[in-house]
Formats: sequence, C-alpha cells, structure tokens
Amino acid sequence: MKMALDVAMMTKGQTGKNPPVGAVVVKDGSIIGMGAHFGYGQPHAERQALASCSVDPSGADIYVTLEPCSHHGKTPPCTDAIIEAGIRNVFYAEQDLNPKVSGHEVLARAGLHVECMPSDETRALYREFFNHLERGRPNITLKCAVSADGRLALADGTSRWITGQAARTDVHYERNVHDAILVGAHTLLGDDPLLTTRIEGGGRSPRPVVLLGSGALREDLEIFRHPKRPVIYTTNEDNLKYEDRCDVKIGDWSLEDVLRDLYEMKLTSLFVEGGASVHTSFIKEGLYDRIFLYVAPKIFGESTHSLFKEGIPSMDGAVQLELVDVEKLGPDLKITYRKA
Amino acid sequence: MKMALDVAMMTKGQTGKNPPVGAVVVKDGSIIGMGAHFGYGQPHAERQALASCSVDPSGADIYVTLEPCSHHGKTPPCTDAIIEAGIRNVFYAEQDLNPKVSGHEVLARAGLHVECMPSDETRALYREFFNHLERGRPNITLKCAVSADGRLALADGTSRWITGQAARTDVHYERNVHDAILVGAHTLLGDDPLLTTRIEGGGRSPRPVVLLGSGALREDLEIFRHPKRPVIYTTNEDNLKYEDRCDVKIGDWSLEDVLRDLYEMKLTSLFVEGGASVHTSFIKEGLYDRIFLYVAPKIFGESTHSLFKEGIPSMDGAVQLELVDVEKLGPDLKITYRKA
Repeated sequence: MKMALDVAMMTKGQTGKNPPVGAVVVKDGSIIGMGAHFGYGQPHAERQALASCSVDPSGADIYVTLEPCSHHGKTPPCTDAIIEAGIRNVFYAEQDLNPKVSGHEVLARAGLHVECMPSDETRALYREFFNHLERGRPNITLKCAVSADGRLALADGTSRWITGQAARTDVHYERNVHDAILVGAHTLLGDDPLLTTRIEGGGRSPRPVVLLGSGALREDLEIFRHPKRPVIYTTNEDNLKYEDRCDVKIGDWSLEDVLRDLYEMKLTSLFVEGGASVHTSFIKEGLYDRIFLYVAPKIFGESTHSLFKEGIPSMDGAVQLELVDVEKLGPDLKITYRKA
Repeated sequence: MKMALDVAMMTKGQTGKNPPVGAVVVKDGSIIGMGAHFGYGQPHAERQALASCSVDPSGADIYVTLEPCSHHGKTPPCTDAIIEAGIRNVFYAEQDLNPKVSGHEVLARAGLHVECMPSDETRALYREFFNHLERGRPNITLKCAVSADGRLALADGTSRWITGQAARTDVHYERNVHDAILVGAHTLLGDDPLLTTRIEGGGRSPRPVVLLGSGALREDLEIFRHPKRPVIYTTNEDNLKYEDRCDVKIGDWSLEDVLRDLYEMKLTSLFVEGGASVHTSFIKEGLYDRIFLYVAPKIFGESTHSLFKEGIPSMDGAVQLELVDVEKLGPDLKITYRKA
C-alpha cells in the first residue's frame, strides 16, 4: 500500500478536480503491474495498473489508495475492470465519500475479498478532496497577494501589481482547476476583472460568482464577456435587468446559503480572490479549506487593506492555520496554509 | 574557480562571522587538494587545501574564492602557508575589503603570480560580509516574528508567543553569530528581555544595545544580568546613575551616529529585534542588510503592531526587498530578505 501511495503522490497536483490515486498489482509475492491516474478524464489508476501487468493478473491482488469507482464518470467503472481481470483480493486505503461510489459493495457482491486499510497519509491526501462531499459545500481556497508586511494594497488602495509574473501565472493555473471563482462587490466594480483563465493552451475558466450586496451592475463590465455565465448574489433588484446575461439571485444571502446554492449547482471547488471584506467573512465563519498567500518582496507600510479586518482579543483567539507548503515563484513566495 | 566556489558554498551558514571560503590546488592539470574554512577560529580554506594535497604542491596553482589573508587573526596568515608550499600562481575571486588584509601584495612581493578573477556569484556571496567594511557600520539584520497577516502583535500588544519552539531556537542561533543585539525603549521596558543566547553548549551572547530615548532604566531590569556590558543611548541624564553596570551615552543620537559608534566599538554585526518603531526607523533610513521574517501560521487581524509604521504613497515608493531564502521551522516559516 505504501508503494501505491508513492505512485499516487507522483501525480499530486496534475489530476485537476480528481484526487491522485495509485495502484499496485501483486501476484505470487511479486509486483506485476502498477499505475496512477495521470489527469482528469484519463484512465483511473486501477485500469492503468491492470493494463501494465507483465503476466496475467488473474488470481492477483490489487492495492489501491482509494476505493475503486463503481459508476460511469468520464471513464467506465474500475470495478468492471477488476472483476474482468480475475483479481482475487482488493485492498484500498480510503473510502470514496462520493455517494455514487460504492466499489467495495460491487466487488464484494462479485465474490472478491475487499478490505479497507486506511492510514494517516492517505487520510491527509484525500481530506481536501472529500470536504465538499462531507460538508455539502464546495472546497474553498482563499487567494491573496500580499506584501511582506501582509498588506493587500497600499494605503490608497493601489494593488497592481503586488506580485510578479510567475505568481500571477500560478494564479491562472489555480483558476484552471477550480469550478468557480468568487469576488466581492468592491473588487468587481472597482477592478473590473476578467476572472478568466489565461494559460498556455487556453485552459478552463471557472464560473464567476459575485457577492454584490446592494451594488449595481454596469453594462460595460468585463464579467459579461466571460465564457461562463456569471452568478450574482445581490439585494438590489435593479440588477434583474441584466438577467439575460447572468444569473441574478435576489435576496439577503448568507455566506452559508450562497455556498449551499453553489454546491447544488455542482460547483465543487471555489477559488475566492477577495477583496479584504470577502476574505474576512470567509475566515470569520471558518468557511475555507486552504489559503494561498502570494508574498511579494516589498514593504507597503501603513494601510487598512489587510486579510482579516477584525480584531482578536487574545492569543488563544488567533485564527489557527497549518502550514502545508511554501515555494518560490520568481521573486515571490507562495505559502499554502490549510485550516487547522 | 567554480569548484572552489562550490566548496565554499557547502560551508555557508556554519562559518559564523567569517565568510565561507573554498580553495582548490591544481598541479599539471589535476586537482591535488581542496579545502574549505569550516568554522570561526578554524584553519582557513587555503591551509586546509594545502594540507590535503596528495602530492607535493610545490609549483602548483591555487584557486581561492577570497583573497588570502596576510595578518595574524585567530589563525596565522595564509600567505605564509602559500609561499612555504611553493605555490606558483594564486587566483582569487574577490578582494578582501578588510584593510588588514592585503594578501595579494604580500604574495606578489614574494614573486608569485597573483590574479583577481571576480564573478557575480562570488560578489553576491561576499557582499554581506564586506558591507560593514565598505560602509563603516555593522552589518544589520532586522528580525521580526509575525503572524501570517503580517502583525507583530495582537491589537492589545500581546506577542508571546507568536512562533513555535523551532523558530525561537533559530533566533538564539542567530544571536550567537552576531556581535550586538539592539532593542528599543518599548521592548526593553515593556518586555524586560534577557537578550542572551540560549543554545546547546552555551553559545556567545551578543552585546546588548538599547535605543532608550527619554526612557528611564530600572534597577530590576534583566539586561543588568547580561554577561556583556549593555550600551544605552539616551537623552535622559537620570540614567547616568546606572553607569556602574552599563555604558550610558547621553545625547540626541541619530541612528547613523549610533551605528558609527557601535562600529568604532568593533561591533561588526548587529541583530535588531525591534519593536515596531525601531524597525520602522531602520527601514525608513535604509539602514539594514537583511530582514528575517519568522512567520507563524496564525491570523491576528486588526492591529497597529506592524513592521513598518509609515504610509507609502505609490507602488514605486514601496520598500523593495529581495527574497534570499525560505525555510520551514516546525509550524513556522523563516523568510530571509535582503535590501534590494
């Protein structure tokens, strides 16, 4: 299983909205095949491993880091392939929390021995992928570009550009793997962003979502040229006149209601680009899974533009994060935290 | 020379107040010896390289990343060893800016061929070590522990503890390699810090320096138990009554004057631990070489306790830094910037 996990880890970051999965086929004490899921829409690890077998896998065991799928998604069910190959024992590390997946039942009904062998590593690996299934909301990543002294903008609000090209390109790759992108009224009306994915080969733009509050849409906003239909949450009924080009959802939406609504629209991952008030709301309500901090080598000094715009009364009350990763992107840093 | 630099780089960070230096001895086209300076007080790279020679180095060439020393420091002059070994050609990458070092003259006078071969890499390597010689002030490192949103403390001033044990231990190792440690009045009188080095094996405490302004010393301050005699810059003549246990320097000292004074006291490296007003002064006047940011995985929210307490009017006016390094220290990060 350790080896299957190693194989899975090699593909981490390249599998898009799918989790990384690794599989190893063992027969008579020797490894006869191994495989990983290389990318969204491509064959699953189990099929790759079975296809790679050096000898007939009939009677062999398969070790896979995630419960084999039993439904038709982008690819046919792995349970079929495992049964057809004549596999005897199936060991999987983590159960797939997607209610459409019940591979262990399908395999057991077909007479195979099926066993769940979880570990801390596999739990950690899949946690973020199953959040949205457990919680009934999208996985949420907050993204902020800050100065070394933690400012989102200069005192006068200037924020273009804080980070360099490499960091900005990375943001586009992150947009590419998210279903939806969210900004607040201030960012939409002040910055008039495109909210598209601009990467080599085109990429897939996330669906734009705006928490507009009482703000008013304008004819000339770039968001109306976005390839996906924007979703606007607003209390201002005047915005209904733009219903031909976006979903206008009137009401006093709470953040939880918005997230449930997005989830019902099958948007399972949300990239939140701010601004400060939006980030503050998500952090205050604990509605986030990861924070990406892109840190520029600059000092901005006094400025009210900060990540979290509320005071905290004591050290115990500080919002606790967990450091996941840090990488250099040209002159900048990308720090990944998850909610502790 | 590239190889000598590689050897030098292996010892980066372990040579204390000395720069890392590497040396390679070449005879008849083959490498016959190599060495590095492994630590403060230990033999220089040239002596290590000559001692390692597999054949008689007489008539050989030596490549060394820094001009060989010609004075008695902790160890005898390298020029003696080079001349005694019968070396014919000496190639060095960077000139030693210490006025006591003029190895190239000594060697040339002894009839050797001596040549300076500088490169961008060696220039970058030694820049920080020669700052103090070029500028007539100590090398200055600003140290701050901050939250992920860039705060030095909560709104109420609480700052114990921002970072975890690994980061705090690292601070003690940094104190160990600095000649002096500086804090402001607010930190001295508010936190009453020890300002000593507490590491395995004891370590060497930097000399404490305080910018006290009009503040008043108190009998019970921990600083009076420091193994080195504190230096207090103050406008308040009442502080003279503590002259028996510290140097009290009365006057309206500018930061430049303080730094020149410390330099004349042969304190060539200064570790500035804050607080915010002190950091702001150093940054504002551009009087720093490096900034160590220890970043904790916490959000502190609104707070006036920030690294640089002045506003900046435009993106062009932002204080520009250069990212040198980032490392994980337990749950925290240590980010090293240098002045751009």
